[in-house]
Amino acid sequence: MAKKRNLYLTSVPLSRALEEYVIQMAEVLNQREIQWVDVGDSLGKMTAEPVFARISAPHYNAAAMDGIAIDAAKTYGASETTPVQLQQNSDFVMVNTGAPLPDAFDAVIMIEDVVEVDEETVEIRSAATPWQHVRPVGEDIVKGELILPVRHLIRPQDMGALLSGGVTQVPVFRKIRVGLIPTGSEITAMTDPLPPGKIIESNSRMFKGLIETYGGETITYPVVKDEPRLLEAAVLRGVAENDLLVINAGSSAGTKDFTVDVLRELGSVMFHGIAIKPGKPAILAQVKGKPVVGIPGYPVSAYVVFEQIVKPLVYHYRLLPPPEPEMVEAVLARRVVSSLKHEEHIRIKLGQVSGRWIATPLSRGAGVTMSLVRADGMLTVPQEVEGYEKSTVVPIRLARPLKEIQNTLVSIGSHDLVMDLLSNELQAGGKGVALSSAHAGSMGGLMALKQGECHMAPIHLLDETTGRYNDAMAARYFPGKKMVLIKLVKRSQGLILPRGNLKKITGIADLTREDVTMVNRQKGAGTRILLDYYLKRDSIDPLKVKGYHREMTTHMAVAVAVGSGGADCGMGVASAAASMELDFLHLDWEDYDLLCEESTLELTAVQELLKIIRGDAFQKQVAAMGGYDLSQAGELVYLNQAT
Amino acid sequence: MAKKRNLYLTSVPLSRALEEYVIQMAEVLNQREIQWVDVGDSLGKMTAEPVFARISAPHYNAAAMDGIAIDAAKTYGASETTPVQLQQNSDFVMVNTGAPLPDAFDAVIMIEDVVEVDEETVEIRSAATPWQHVRPVGEDIVKGELILPVRHLIRPQDMGALLSGGVTQVPVFRKIRVGLIPTGSEITAMTDPLPPGKIIESNSRMFKGLIETYGGETITYPVVKDEPRLLEAAVLRGVAENDLLVINAGSSAGTKDFTVDVLRELGSVMFHGIAIKPGKPAILAQVKGKPVVGIPGYPVSAYVVFEQIVKPLVYHYRLLPPPEPEMVEAVLARRVVSSLKHEEHIRIKLGQVSGRWIATPLSRGAGVTMSLVRADGMLTVPQEVEGYEKSTVVPIRLARPLKEIQNTLVSIGSHDLVMDLLSNELQAGGKGVALSSAHAGSMGGLMALKQGECHMAPIHLLDETTGRYNDAMAARYFPGKKMVLIKLVKRSQGLILPRGNLKKITGIADLTREDVTMVNRQKGAGTRILLDYYLKRDSIDPLKVKGYHREMTTHMAVAVAVGSGGADCGMGVASAAASMELDFLHLDWEDYDLLCEESTLELTAVQELLKIIRGDAFQKQVAAMGGYDLSQAGELVYLNQAT
Repeated sequence: MAKKRNLYLTSVPLSRALEEYVIQMAEVLNQREIQWVDVGDSLGKMTAEPVFARISAPHYNAAAMDGIAIDAAKTYGASETTPVQLQQNSDFVMVNTGAPLPDAFDAVIMIEDVVEVDEETVEIRSAATPWQHVRPVGEDIVKGELILPVRHLIRPQDMGALLSGGVTQVPVFRKIRVGLIPTGSEITAMTDPLPPGKIIESNSRMFKGLIETYGGETITYPVVKDEPRLLEAAVLRGVAENDLLVINAGSSAGTKDFTVDVLRELGSVMFHGIAIKPGKPAILAQVKGKPVVGIPGYPVSAYVVFEQIVKPLVYHYRLLPPPEPEMVEAVLARRVVSSLKHEEHIRIKLGQVSGRWIATPLSRGAGVTMSLVRADGMLTVPQEVEGYEKSTVVPIRLARPLKEIQNTLVSIGSHDLVMDLLSNELQAGGKGVALSSAHAGSMGGLMALKQGECHMAPIHLLDETTGRYNDAMAARYFPGKKMVLIKLVKRSQGLILPRGNLKKITGIADLTREDVTMVNRQKGAGTRILLDYYLKRDSIDPLKVKGYHREMTTHMAVAVAVGSGGADCGMGVASAAASMELDFLHLDWEDYDLLCEESTLELTAVQELLKIIRGDAFQKQVAAMGGYDLSQAGELVYLNQAT
Repeated sequence: MAKKRNLYLTSVPLSRALEEYVIQMAEVLNQREIQWVDVGDSLGKMTAEPVFARISAPHYNAAAMDGIAIDAAKTYGASETTPVQLQQNSDFVMVNTGAPLPDAFDAVIMIEDVVEVDEETVEIRSAATPWQHVRPVGEDIVKGELILPVRHLIRPQDMGALLSGGVTQVPVFRKIRVGLIPTGSEITAMTDPLPPGKIIESNSRMFKGLIETYGGETITYPVVKDEPRLLEAAVLRGVAENDLLVINAGSSAGTKDFTVDVLRELGSVMFHGIAIKPGKPAILAQVKGKPVVGIPGYPVSAYVVFEQIVKPLVYHYRLLPPPEPEMVEAVLARRVVSSLKHEEHIRIKLGQVSGRWIATPLSRGAGVTMSLVRADGMLTVPQEVEGYEKSTVVPIRLARPLKEIQNTLVSIGSHDLVMDLLSNELQAGGKGVALSSAHAGSMGGLMALKQGECHMAPIHLLDETTGRYNDAMAARYFPGKKMVLIKLVKRSQGLILPRGNLKKITGIADLTREDVTMVNRQKGAGTRILLDYYLKRDSIDPLKVKGYHREMTTHMAVAVAVGSGGADCGMGVASAAASMELDFLHLDWEDYDLLCEESTLELTAVQELLKIIRGDAFQKQVAAMGGYDLSQAGELVYLNQAT
């Protein structure tokens, strides 16, 4: 039991830590290396010195029109009644646009104004003025002129001007080089199969992508095992080869987290523990004068620390302000509670319903990478704020373009694989319409729909009194309101069982067996309601069912729990069992439909959705999964219509 | 004289041409190749198929805390008064965060809640619930779950999620490949010296940069000389190797422009001549079913055709809407006249003066690359609009971030090299402050300042009655208004002469000599006013001065004209002669100062400017150029103060 653990972390406000750290690291960050690069490779780079034209453009007097080059003096007095005749070579030469003006000539007459007399002679009927239709030397760029000032981000048009000004190489600041050291004996590359206890090294790729987005470049070092001497060597190499070093994981206060000790030994630690959530265990240190940042291992914590700490450091080096994120004001769909101990960054799903932006907080678990993928934006709760009440209008920092989010149908309710297929078919349709599904169970969906937080709720709700699905419950939940059920599928519900069903489970009654542990769905899920209906019908006490209180939020999660041996069975749909190649005991067919307000049908996005539901492509894919009946797919059932 | 010329171009509205062209090319543009790439190389690419998780994350039940793994059932009933003792290995094992939960255990107790009894025994004082502090299989990602839908642009966080879900390669759309063929016998790579009639190949680099900005990649082919058979071969190769082919130049109706004939022969030409200015001679064609776009040779025309035609084609291929440009509403500083024959794109310099955005149209010459470099944005005058009156509020499409422009001091007036130095020093200062100089002559500057179009006007204006520079004229021009002259330099004005002064010009009187041709400055320029003052004083008739009517807008342009043999002399400053290594005949010292309103001094940017003017770095650079007197630099002269 005797292992040394780090002391508790301190907790410094983010803004103060960052400000002090940047001040201390400024001298190193401001030592920017200058590189001479070919103009063709300079796009997006910043000039390190002013760039002056080496030649003029044009560098000779050039014809600006197709026509004849002449000495203007010879045309003086020319008019319709007193035309002037000119001889080829002695009085004029033919010139195309861009051709050099011969020394003897000082003007160009457009070909349209030249009258041909014979092969050698032309007639001119109005006087030319000196230098007409001539691009004089330096009209565009004058030799010695400033083309680009120092600290200018080079754009495509700048590259053209540089070359025109005779400049082939430009002095630019080298990109910041960020070293990435992944640590942890449990971290490994993808192998098949992956042994338990091993975690795929995924953060470094995310970091590389983030640094590239910030305009830097990375070196990713091999994973360092949990051994202080190895980490020391890696850090010393990393600071020698980079402008900024990032060590991933080993920054919390766990028994194997000696990163902070190594950094203290090799250099100094300015901050260990920043008052942000997720991301608290971050370390801000220096080794050999170079900034070294320790990043927590959980992907969401890592992401937040990157955005909040690493990004400003990179932009400081780049001499640019970090790009301002697109913002939107949105109404909170749920109350958010946060601690005064930290500033909190909460992932948000957005949807525009009836003209209002609705912000639904996603999972706050630091380990849930998918919440970063699904998030449309982030809400920051400042340290001095304890949270926000439901319906508060809050600013959201967008993680993808508002336009994309704007055309997204928001669905909250029960989960089924057909929703993933629908989402995919909508995307593939290329109409710019998308479907976002949040899993809150059928009852959660009804509530969200009632509160205007979504466009539609996928539900499968059994009315115990009538034995009917969805219509009766929906009508009761929205009294007097014109609603529509978009019929989707009937699906086979039952028990998901391990391959081979070695425990020979044959029905609900087996759930009370001593050797059987189930896994359940969360309260409010249609599948949970169905199970409770069975237990009640068969007079089974839930307390007698082992695993009844272990809740999963999707069918797939139940299937995975059964498939991995974590449970002996669980209620769910046939398709989830099939996709994990598990056994399945059919118990009932249930209706899984989309409920929405009647007016929602008018949305273009919903019309697209209906086309897909009624189309062959979608129906074939659903049929292929097995366990679905599509006979009613796309039918509309109007509820609460005045009679 | 007998050369075949193309027929006049047709002129189709841009929107119609583009729409019809995209429809005709849609089938080819929609044939997108799918590539499988490593997740690490997928940043910014678009998924071509939905991507599903291959494994769950975590793929085993994992400890979510440092502590001990236990069977929760063994802790039931534990409390402060009835603690439960557990034995290492049989009842518990130590686990760190992330470690797998051994099969016999179903919960984790945090180390903080574990009381050590001896090396082998611990005591627990509250019951654990099953699955507490455990990350169950699939908590983050469930095997088989949709990680990314089709047509999703891959972000850094998506890369992390893909790897966590066991996905190492993703199907993405290959980038569009755009072939670039420069044409023209006069086009050449940079050589030193560059022969007259040769033009540096600069457009292809700009095109490459633009295509990269749009998210495509390019192949640049060798320059094709003006020979139809060579162009044919290049086009056939280009369409075979690319998704879209761009031919630069040879698209107008000049004698050597046979591009359109070649394209007609190899395929078909949908449009030759689009109603945009600049850019009219553009060609939209197809060869072997592939889109081929002919782009005019002048860089500004080329840029406009790229932005208006090539960009939408690339984004069509990418399945994305072109990014919406940042816009700003600005007040036109000058009247803009445009023809009903075309939609016109006018380069604009912006400045924020007294809270209003002022839009000053830049040179409309299609050959002036530097106008693209200097432009802050573009104004589109639609085809059906004849122009805008001065002071109209118009929408400007920004070419650089508004924030950068916001901190730019706008200077309109006389040109001097010290303005370039000042601009550079401001940029180098890194305070985010910039200086933009437009050259309009001293009188032009006074007028712009009066109309609130600039912050300051650099002027050198001789008052003939008093013989004084600037103060008298400025006070007269702004009666009763509190103004300030920021004293900058005294500079040596005189005649710029060819090296060696072979024509032995010794004064103003020589300008009337038969063998002497001068080059002049534009009306309103202080230097022009000074010359006119001399001519009047010496009773010289300007009509007797050859070249009097040939006007240049900068000192450097005058020096270049003299240096290239285009003129025998011109009035200008000593520094311009020195920088071109020319001879110089000193005539007078004049004051070159910055005029602004007194309130303008309060701007941070002006305070920065004053620091630089008064500083060593700037003064040393000016002194090194020669021909300047800095004894008053940075002094302030207040005008029109109430007494």
